[in-house]
Amino acid sequence: MLYFEVLKKDESSLARSGVIHTAHGDVNTPQFLPIGTRGTVKTVTSEELKFWGAPMVLANTYHLWQRPGDGLIYKAGGLHKFMNWKGPIFTDSGGFQVYSLAKMRKVMEAGVLFQFDLDGKQEILSPEKSVDIQANLGSDIALILDDFPGYPFEHSRSKESIELTKRWAERAIKEFQRIVVDGNPVNPGQRLWGIVQGASFKNLREQSAKDMVELGFEAFAIGGVAVGEPHEEMMKAIEYAIPHLPELSPKHLLGVGTPFDIIQAVSRGCDTFDCVIPTREARHGRLYIAARSEDGKEGYETIDIRLEKHKEDFTPIDSTCNCYACLNHTRAYVRHLFASGEMLGVRLATMHNLRFYLNFMEKIRTAIQYDYFDEMSSNFREIKLQ
Amino acid sequence: MLYFEVLKKDESSLARSGVIHTAHGDVNTPQFLPIGTRGTVKTVTSEELKFWGAPMVLANTYHLWQRPGDGLIYKAGGLHKFMNWKGPIFTDSGGFQVYSLAKMRKVMEAGVLFQFDLDGKQEILSPEKSVDIQANLGSDIALILDDFPGYPFEHSRSKESIELTKRWAERAIKEFQRIVVDGNPVNPGQRLWGIVQGASFKNLREQSAKDMVELGFEAFAIGGVAVGEPHEEMMKAIEYAIPHLPELSPKHLLGVGTPFDIIQAVSRGCDTFDCVIPTREARHGRLYIAARSEDGKEGYETIDIRLEKHKEDFTPIDSTCNCYACLNHTRAYVRHLFASGEMLGVRLATMHNLRFYLNFMEKIRTAIQYDYFDEMSSNFREIKLQ
Repeated sequence: MLYFEVLKKDESSLARSGVIHTAHGDVNTPQFLPIGTRGTVKTVTSEELKFWGAPMVLANTYHLWQRPGDGLIYKAGGLHKFMNWKGPIFTDSGGFQVYSLAKMRKVMEAGVLFQFDLDGKQEILSPEKSVDIQANLGSDIALILDDFPGYPFEHSRSKESIELTKRWAERAIKEFQRIVVDGNPVNPGQRLWGIVQGASFKNLREQSAKDMVELGFEAFAIGGVAVGEPHEEMMKAIEYAIPHLPELSPKHLLGVGTPFDIIQAVSRGCDTFDCVIPTREARHGRLYIAARSEDGKEGYETIDIRLEKHKEDFTPIDSTCNCYACLNHTRAYVRHLFASGEMLGVRLATMHNLRFYLNFMEKIRTAIQYDYFDEMSSNFREIKLQ
Repeated sequence: MLYFEVLKKDESSLARSGVIHTAHGDVNTPQFLPIGTRGTVKTVTSEELKFWGAPMVLANTYHLWQRPGDGLIYKAGGLHKFMNWKGPIFTDSGGFQVYSLAKMRKVMEAGVLFQFDLDGKQEILSPEKSVDIQANLGSDIALILDDFPGYPFEHSRSKESIELTKRWAERAIKEFQRIVVDGNPVNPGQRLWGIVQGASFKNLREQSAKDMVELGFEAFAIGGVAVGEPHEEMMKAIEYAIPHLPELSPKHLLGVGTPFDIIQAVSRGCDTFDCVIPTREARHGRLYIAARSEDGKEGYETIDIRLEKHKEDFTPIDSTCNCYACLNHTRAYVRHLFASGEMLGVRLATMHNLRFYLNFMEKIRTAIQYDYFDEMSSNFREIKLQ
């Protein structure tokens, strides 16, 4: 069986529907992965995630390494058992959180020297260490450690980063071979994906993509995006990388994004996405709802459920939504829960936003399947109704 | 149909199993009511409560009056619709929170003058106002406003309180007749229950019970307990009141308590209970688990899941429990969630403790039904294993 199968190609774009066969089950693509940072998607049980149709979650290597420690999770039998999630798990390399959260950070050939944000403990995250931790976690998809320069992008620093990422990738592959392929790992079905860097420079994205293919990776993440750059820059990064990656390989876009970002990236050939937006926004009362613009075009808007205007609104958050919150509760009630600091408010908001994202991905897959993705994607955008 | 039916009487004590027929369904007794202070049992959905076997919840008049306001809940169609809970709802009078939470409090013949804790707004909670608010909420069981002196108990102050409570009860009954019985209320099936006060003084509890019967109430709450007095004082208050209340009336013990308090109160004739213990303790990581003492007697212990000792404990919270948390997760995982400040930790702890209480009440009902309540209650206590 192929690791990744393309089921249907869109004729007007690079969008396709497909399926990734992981050691813990299939993932239909295009797909969104809820973020389970510390081995839990915030406020949500594994049973709920399954029920809502989330096939795969993303967990953060940096956070789990720091607490409770990958050694403890190894003893528990791996992250699937520790968090009791039977579906596929995607882990990042830890590099992004070292970049965004660590107190101190110094990139060296050996790896990244940094201090953990919680206790200030000094560590080196090396390509080998990242593979080791992810092997202990036993995720289905592991990522190589990459270097990236941050935004605004600078050509010379970005060039160094793709070169370092390539050298680190070689070391990661060796370590993966040693402890996962030849070893006795928690999850013998774990796969190591490459990462394409290169900011929004055409020649660098091209070079980095070619490097990763040359190293023998069968699946790829596109990294160094969603770091503050405008939407157009993000799209360029994708457009420059995709033509140099095998068509029949799954491609993950790291840390993206809004529904608009996602549908645009799907049309450029990306298959999977992870982002804190639906869960983090939910915690602040910002909810995604389906909407149409004045000229009848489909899209979405966001509302702030905490606002006074929803106080006596006895309609659902989104009357077109099939989540538990929308089927059972009113805006007035959810607003009351937020106003009272009641955790149930965050729960209802989280289930709604996640369902919105998961439903949205399903609409994309259906549109590709039934040949109307072009129409859907060319109209779909965020609508400002308020 | 009788409002309350006794199904089985225990031969060795005043314990009985029964059923209260409310406008929103039956409540099998003895029973525990989870606390839904602000129209939500903290962290829990209505669907979950139903699934876990909670037949009735208790909501707080004081809190809902303050926010979102009983007027808003009336507009929503009552509290059942506002919180989407289709089962019975019990509301208190608001008096206890005025006593325990308000910034300022002055008891007058007209009612209690006080300042809300959140915004300092000054209000008078009168017997009529309490009935009015509860009518707007549309609960199935409403309570009359009572006065109580607090602990330590003093005879003269306690005597004044039962006299004032009686005069207030007369006014509450008139108001209830006017707006619920003769009016067009949210919930025409709402019933007003009397409250017995009198601290732990035999003559006062007796007098207060007789007052309430004389006023025509068909159901009763025993109040002024769980205010800091020792277990023995609480039991005295029950023992002094019960003989003077009709046997075939339901009796609620307000704000009680530990499983040990509850089983002892059941043996003295109490039918229903409400308490923040299972939900509040859960939020602090304190969990109730079934245990046996060294001499083989059944009971329970509490554990603090946050402790280091549970760090690598890959067994369930309670291997005899059928809650989602125990069936799906380990102590190590729940501890990790608490250590990481993850809301799912509080959710899992809450569902466990509530299930423990609800299972415990079911065990009591079964013991009464099958004639071993005497054995169960005489052995059952909190066991200190650690």
